[in-house]
Amino acid sequence: MQVLVLGAGQLARMMSLAGAPLGLKVKAYDVRSHTVVHPLTLENYQQDLAAGLIDCDVVTAEFEHIPQDILSQCQASGKFRPGAEAIRIGGDRRLEKQLLDSADVPNAKYQVVSTEADLHQAIASIGLPLVLKSALEGYDGKGQWRLKTTADAAQVWAEVSSFLQESSANQAIVAEAWIPFDREVSVIGARGKDGSVKVYPLTQNHHENGILSLSVALTDTEQLQQQATHAFEKLTKTLDYVGVLAIEFFDVDGKLLVNEIAPRVHNSGHWTQQGADVCQFENHLRAVCGLAIGNTQLVSAAAMVNVIGTDNIPNSIHQLDGVHLHWYDKDKRAGRKMGHINVCAEDKAELKKRLAALLKQLDEADFPGLHQAAQALL
Amino acid sequence: MQVLVLGAGQLARMMSLAGAPLGLKVKAYDVRSHTVVHPLTLENYQQDLAAGLIDCDVVTAEFEHIPQDILSQCQASGKFRPGAEAIRIGGDRRLEKQLLDSADVPNAKYQVVSTEADLHQAIASIGLPLVLKSALEGYDGKGQWRLKTTADAAQVWAEVSSFLQESSANQAIVAEAWIPFDREVSVIGARGKDGSVKVYPLTQNHHENGILSLSVALTDTEQLQQQATHAFEKLTKTLDYVGVLAIEFFDVDGKLLVNEIAPRVHNSGHWTQQGADVCQFENHLRAVCGLAIGNTQLVSAAAMVNVIGTDNIPNSIHQLDGVHLHWYDKDKRAGRKMGHINVCAEDKAELKKRLAALLKQLDEADFPGLHQAAQALL
Repeated sequence: MQVLVLGAGQLARMMSLAGAPLGLKVKAYDVRSHTVVHPLTLENYQQDLAAGLIDCDVVTAEFEHIPQDILSQCQASGKFRPGAEAIRIGGDRRLEKQLLDSADVPNAKYQVVSTEADLHQAIASIGLPLVLKSALEGYDGKGQWRLKTTADAAQVWAEVSSFLQESSANQAIVAEAWIPFDREVSVIGARGKDGSVKVYPLTQNHHENGILSLSVALTDTEQLQQQATHAFEKLTKTLDYVGVLAIEFFDVDGKLLVNEIAPRVHNSGHWTQQGADVCQFENHLRAVCGLAIGNTQLVSAAAMVNVIGTDNIPNSIHQLDGVHLHWYDKDKRAGRKMGHINVCAEDKAELKKRLAALLKQLDEADFPGLHQAAQALL
Repeated sequence: MQVLVLGAGQLARMMSLAGAPLGLKVKAYDVRSHTVVHPLTLENYQQDLAAGLIDCDVVTAEFEHIPQDILSQCQASGKFRPGAEAIRIGGDRRLEKQLLDSADVPNAKYQVVSTEADLHQAIASIGLPLVLKSALEGYDGKGQWRLKTTADAAQVWAEVSSFLQESSANQAIVAEAWIPFDREVSVIGARGKDGSVKVYPLTQNHHENGILSLSVALTDTEQLQQQATHAFEKLTKTLDYVGVLAIEFFDVDGKLLVNEIAPRVHNSGHWTQQGADVCQFENHLRAVCGLAIGNTQLVSAAAMVNVIGTDNIPNSIHQLDGVHLHWYDKDKRAGRKMGHINVCAEDKAELKKRLAALLKQLDEADFPGLHQAAQALL
């Protein structure tokens, strides 16, 4: 089968690597250059989206910030999974919050604000602190403001309204209760065409400067896992979703509140490449291609370290058992996700040792906060 | 780094999939069409071998039956690993037997025969039964004759000499003692530029009609593993070998006799993709690119089923835990290796169950002898 992925980044690349053994071929539509390319070799197929859509059996997406005209064109092909609505919801904080409420999945109180008066109303009804988030194009902590006291409201609103003026007409701001969470966790799962669902074990995530830095697959979290699975089932059923979907949660004293969802494979699920029987990339392709969802159980203890804005990865890491580099082959740029490193081991104690051995080889300046995060998470 | 592989078949394809996460890019030189292509996408780079050699950092091979002029051209580039000599030895039974003797590695008694008189001399000095093997182009059991009694010598020689007349001038016949083996096993290992060696656990192999049908990774074979590792170290040191090399053995009552060697990744090591920390394809690339050899230890119990001459693989196999299809995306042809299926599990008992579950889904007619072999090997 031929799959067309909207977006030609590392997620499409890893889908192509995961799909090849099953005979699932992946092309990517680069939304910026409007070209169809191979996501691994970047071979240009000299096709536009219309030709790419005719050529493929299934179209899917590796990100959610996609112009509506492209989504509509894909939807019209009848081949789009999880489909335009799911992608649109994932890309618009207003729709996402509506979905969470309509599916009755616990999430932080919120209000859409358009004016400074709206903001004061939100302060009154939700309370402080608040987090203000842009509805569109929010990504890796961009487009977010925190409001702690009423005294700061005018200043924050000045920043927000200046941001709104520079944004598209459809942009908006969602004011949300700030959640005093114990930790951030996420669940990745896949739902098949037949409605069957398999979810991976929960992942605990550490963000540094708003970007995911470290993920560790959790075990012995039965009670949390049940909540996460329940939320996954409710949300995907509401959307009649097909494919992999990720849900990020705040863990507040053992209760999970959804922070956000991503209608796609997700950075916090990259450890599944080594840590699970079938990885998220293969399972997404299986789902959208109508194959059975593969086993999502752990085959080893697993963690993932993101490589952000550096290509300073010493060859010495290849000497370490259970350490697997995944390089995206992109030009270096500050803050850019350049690759990730999966670490696997028979059990958590050995995983901790192997992660420590890896961190010894990495330059601390390139991985700020990682040592402390590894101490905290393992 | 850019690697050029001689041969554009499934082994080059799987190298490209294994290398991509490390940022190791693989192109393939198709020895038949004299084109440089991408082994996964088959994109034609419009290069000849000379241009491909300039463009790459390392050249290696996925098979050993390569014309001498091509080997010489690669050798002259200074980038060829394991190099022309190792490939030539792997492709010529006479040289292979000489190597085994000079490295003092146990193997079956042999004699090169060119005439019927030579054959009778071989019968006298080695004894019967004998196996006659073509020195060149022997592959998957082709070019082999078995001689059981002196009475059959004239008939067998008639067949052999007719074969020789149709062959190239450099062709020859090696007469070898027939070995009454208990089982066939193989070892795959990698040797780095620095001479460091890591070998995978031994694999037990079942051949059907001369073609590998089933491989099972062995555990609890310390004594055999030592012999295999010893042979691997001696042979690769003698050749100053860099890369993955496979050795096939006869197990004769706990003593290993080398049957043949392959200077490349090998079909009996395909289970390492799921069963070992680092698979043979990645380790070959690591070795030839000068990176550290990765951990060759098992991460699960593992077996591999070859898919020969059929594309009748029901989707139902994807429902099975620990079952991983690797499809080569080739046109179907009788006797052709179309793909393989790896089966993994926590332990041998579970592996046996999972393999049985897989065999239930496969059409027996497409996998002759496999059910009995699975019974025997697990």
